[in-house]
Amino acid sequence: MVWILASFATAASAAMSQDAAKPLQTPAEVVAAAPASEWRAIDPQDLLVIDFSGGGRTVIQLAPAFAPVHVANIKALARAGYWATGAAIYRVQDNYVTQWGLNETERALPPGVVKLPPHEYWLDRQPGGAAPLALKGADAYTPAAGFLGNWPVAYDAKALSIPHCYGYVGVARDLAPDTGTGGELYAVIGHAPRQLDRNIAIVGRVVAGMEHLSARPRGQGALGIYENRASDIPIASVRLAADLPAADRPAFEMLDQASPSFARYLHLRANRKDAFYERPAGGVDICNAPIPVRKKAP
Amino acid sequence: MVWILASFATAASAAMSQDAAKPLQTPAEVVAAAPASEWRAIDPQDLLVIDFSGGGRTVIQLAPAFAPVHVANIKALARAGYWATGAAIYRVQDNYVTQWGLNETERALPPGVVKLPPHEYWLDRQPGGAAPLALKGADAYTPAAGFLGNWPVAYDAKALSIPHCYGYVGVARDLAPDTGTGGELYAVIGHAPRQLDRNIAIVGRVVAGMEHLSARPRGQGALGIYENRASDIPIASVRLAADLPAADRPAFEMLDQASPSFARYLHLRANRKDAFYERPAGGVDICNAPIPVRKKAP
Repeated sequence: MVWILASFATAASAAMSQDAAKPLQTPAEVVAAAPASEWRAIDPQDLLVIDFSGGGRTVIQLAPAFAPVHVANIKALARAGYWATGAAIYRVQDNYVTQWGLNETERALPPGVVKLPPHEYWLDRQPGGAAPLALKGADAYTPAAGFLGNWPVAYDAKALSIPHCYGYVGVARDLAPDTGTGGELYAVIGHAPRQLDRNIAIVGRVVAGMEHLSARPRGQGALGIYENRASDIPIASVRLAADLPAADRPAFEMLDQASPSFARYLHLRANRKDAFYERPAGGVDICNAPIPVRKKAP
Repeated sequence: MVWILASFATAASAAMSQDAAKPLQTPAEVVAAAPASEWRAIDPQDLLVIDFSGGGRTVIQLAPAFAPVHVANIKALARAGYWATGAAIYRVQDNYVTQWGLNETERALPPGVVKLPPHEYWLDRQPGGAAPLALKGADAYTPAAGFLGNWPVAYDAKALSIPHCYGYVGVARDLAPDTGTGGELYAVIGHAPRQLDRNIAIVGRVVAGMEHLSARPRGQGALGIYENRASDIPIASVRLAADLPAADRPAFEMLDQASPSFARYLHLRANRKDAFYERPAGGVDICNAPIPVRKKAP
């Protein structure tokens, strides 16, 4: 069977390369060979676990360092059982977003949830704060792009934001000054709509079960809304991993952006030159070099 | 209901803007208001129509000016009924590609199909040939990006290729020097995997029915291959629009890249500043400014 080779090779082929003592040639091989010391566990307090009534689990890593008020709202909503009944995916717009949740006209916000969070879209960089690891090459939307705290960032000298990459999760909002409570969330399911970067708060990224968002039927109404509410895809529960029974608790880890393996991975994402590729690009855009995340053994 | 506003507004809102004599504020409003003289009909000889056995039609505009041998192969295969029985979608890899077709180990190539087409990946620019309409701003993969002949192109002083944007269609191949016959094709269903640009021939773009490729179940095997062939999604027919009965023949037109409306559309894709957007990006990447294509009245 003829096929284009995937961007991520199988673990088996990575292992073979090591056995043969060949240099690691693909980004996936480098990630598979990264030692345990280069991986960082993700706090189970930062993992939002969505189980769908029809089966399927999606896990989102929240980003409290970048959108603290919105993320605190989302945690409070999960713990209050806000989405435990009546919440659903109600919008799937091709090459744009899948959106789900409830809003305050449908269900009153529980105590402690901030109704109008601040604009956590374009954050002031801290004087003396850590500098991002700069991605070599140009960004079409901001003067620079790179990585900070194991998240992608687009930035200039004064401010930064997490870009709207595939699988990244933001807080739906109406027209400004609304900033969204966190009751309704969306995930990017197409090419990065970076025009949203400095206009909506990104609160996390999907680390597992992306297909339960991306492979849903597209809505036929305006903006991809399901015209018939009977088409909605119901959510059974939304919980933090920390609150799940140990046997059912998902665990993940991410490759440290400061590790040698990440540097090699990034180089190879920009310079593919293995048996399949003839001409390396010499560059890569920020949304085409995702931070590697994998399941962690319990 | 709270939602993030779509990148494409509805025709109704565009009409309202005109009625009120307000300046057109969104890319969708500009496209909806573009006069008929700015649209170019797409040749029905260049429209590949895929009908799925389970329902659904996907239409692909072929790009003979960029990949003449591969496109000639695809037309010959369609006219020979190569995919009329036994062809299927057999691979869906999340954030990468959906792939379908047959190869010569499954069915012999009909006469006239070139078994090893030339490398139509990175084309020499013609001396004295038309210059692309340059997109302002940086490209992470090539010195420049823009539009030529109503197709996106990534280029340098000597050569160019069509980028691997969402919905763009390429010819699956094995390791070089294989270039793919055209019997197996794929479409991008995620963030643009631009590392493929100068390594695989792009032959067209999906202009309708993208959801019949992008919303399919993801394959659980390596590279997103369906492990159980019973999961394959069978194709009923693949024909050129020119060969369909008039009553069933789809027709499309595209906004001319040389038109004033396209220039305005492009400016607004890079500078969103309407009731929803607070901070325009001032830039856009080549895959986030698709050439507008719409159904044409018969």
